[in-house]
Amino acid sequence: MSKVYVVGHKSPDTDSIGAAVSYSYLLRQLGVEAVPICAGEINKESRFALDYFGVEAPVYVKSVARKNPDEEKKKLILVDHNESKQCIDGFEDADIIEVIDHHRIGDFETLKPIFILIRPVGCVNTVVYGLYKQHGVKPSREAAGMMLSAIISDTVLFRSPTTTDEDKQSAIELAKIAGVDYEKYGMEMLRAGADISDYPPEKLANNDSKEFSAGDKVFTIGQISVMDEAPIEAKKAEIMKILEARKIEKNYVASFLMVTNILTENTDLWFTEGAKSFAEKAFGKESKNNAILLEKVMSRKKQVAPFLIKVYE
Amino acid sequence: MSKVYVVGHKSPDTDSIGAAVSYSYLLRQLGVEAVPICAGEINKESRFALDYFGVEAPVYVKSVARKNPDEEKKKLILVDHNESKQCIDGFEDADIIEVIDHHRIGDFETLKPIFILIRPVGCVNTVVYGLYKQHGVKPSREAAGMMLSAIISDTVLFRSPTTTDEDKQSAIELAKIAGVDYEKYGMEMLRAGADISDYPPEKLANNDSKEFSAGDKVFTIGQISVMDEAPIEAKKAEIMKILEARKIEKNYVASFLMVTNILTENTDLWFTEGAKSFAEKAFGKESKNNAILLEKVMSRKKQVAPFLIKVYE
Repeated sequence: MSKVYVVGHKSPDTDSIGAAVSYSYLLRQLGVEAVPICAGEINKESRFALDYFGVEAPVYVKSVARKNPDEEKKKLILVDHNESKQCIDGFEDADIIEVIDHHRIGDFETLKPIFILIRPVGCVNTVVYGLYKQHGVKPSREAAGMMLSAIISDTVLFRSPTTTDEDKQSAIELAKIAGVDYEKYGMEMLRAGADISDYPPEKLANNDSKEFSAGDKVFTIGQISVMDEAPIEAKKAEIMKILEARKIEKNYVASFLMVTNILTENTDLWFTEGAKSFAEKAFGKESKNNAILLEKVMSRKKQVAPFLIKVYE
Repeated sequence: MSKVYVVGHKSPDTDSIGAAVSYSYLLRQLGVEAVPICAGEINKESRFALDYFGVEAPVYVKSVARKNPDEEKKKLILVDHNESKQCIDGFEDADIIEVIDHHRIGDFETLKPIFILIRPVGCVNTVVYGLYKQHGVKPSREAAGMMLSAIISDTVLFRSPTTTDEDKQSAIELAKIAGVDYEKYGMEMLRAGADISDYPPEKLANNDSKEFSAGDKVFTIGQISVMDEAPIEAKKAEIMKILEARKIEKNYVASFLMVTNILTENTDLWFTEGAKSFAEKAFGKESKNNAILLEKVMSRKKQVAPFLIKVYE
């Protein structure tokens, strides 16, 4: 079998980077020449994990399209995503031969049957680790470390309501193989990811921003994880100015930014002008300075978006 | 967990019936109250297998839609299919909680992540048997017999090019558990299925018929296994008349019928008026009397559908 590229989604997080590395390692043990790549710049948290376990970073590939039509199409395995909007550029010109994921299935189609495994767990590396067990392959310390890092990242150290028992059990086993204390290592890794000290306000305003539709209205919700609100609070005026400008430019009804403290597990939900009454109604709480403090709220998907969609509809 | 219904595709074949039975059995061993149902009349081959192994036939359910909106939605597990056109009526009003399949992924979408396992093997019961092994559950003689029957049916006793080593190895193991000689039992079962002597033309025209989408066009491909073409050739005029009428009524762009001889391993592909140029282009061969002889072609999924989808797109 010729070379196979294992790739996560655009704007890669630690789950995508971890799965590209860990699933490639498994495949190589099974005799497949698998190479991890990535579809965007590696973030600080993933970089910390790669450095900690001495793992070579997957190469950032801008496009997997062929240079000329005589070339063979590249073989791709998608991990941690399946929707076309999240795929590496040029994927239409490649052969997707497998999908390993933990998301809803979106607009994904194939002409022939391929191996697809999607499981409703908190982290796709939990699915990958299940495949190690199924094939009776023990992960290396490096692979285990990357799977552990991904589970810690996606579940925010088991604090996210998306966490399943299997995610936690897998992390405990992987921490043993990787030879780390998962609490201690996890906090270190999350801290590295939450370091926004050198981020310009533009980057903070657009951080992990997703569009949502409610009837004919569109709004955005971004999210930033912090361990201390002070540094980002200092930049709030600048960030909100950027969000206001983008809202008008893109005709959004509102823009929200979740500033999520992974230590207190609270989210400070910032919003643009005019959203006050909607936000207050959505969460049944009073706001202060265009922000609402949401206690024990960390999940955009489960705890924030559905309530805002409801009031805007 | 409340009751879960395991269902194969419309116009069920032995793989769909077998998987509904065998996957339900596995789930019950795992503590899930699973009930096999089917989305159409059970064919002679499947009936032979059910009778041989003393298995109660899955109940034919016309629609899984709720009678009134206060009722809870039914929980469905799809086996051996995922495209909406092949789903049991009323599926839009049910909760699809899992998909176990061995086909291409078509227009299937979910709102939330669910368990999806698709593997490119010859028979979905090979996938189900893999899940037995994964969970360390030994199939009963009845469940093993149905899985074996399904593998024999879908691979035409390992003659189809879709057959993988794993299909064959699984069949050998399952034959041991079921206590049968797979060659001898297999030929008996295939012979029972190929007996079309008492089938009215309507039944032959609709046999194992599946809808396929290519862009905004829809066409159907049915398949009939025979051991001798003469009896069905004698009814060809009547069968094609029915296919033409249904094509117009349902607004299909074309309808195809694969008459597959399981002894010679050839398929005579019959098609409705207007499909000649598409069929000839798809297979690069000339047709005769609205039919193309495809030598060593037995698989709709691998050897027929993809080529027709391509020319209609």
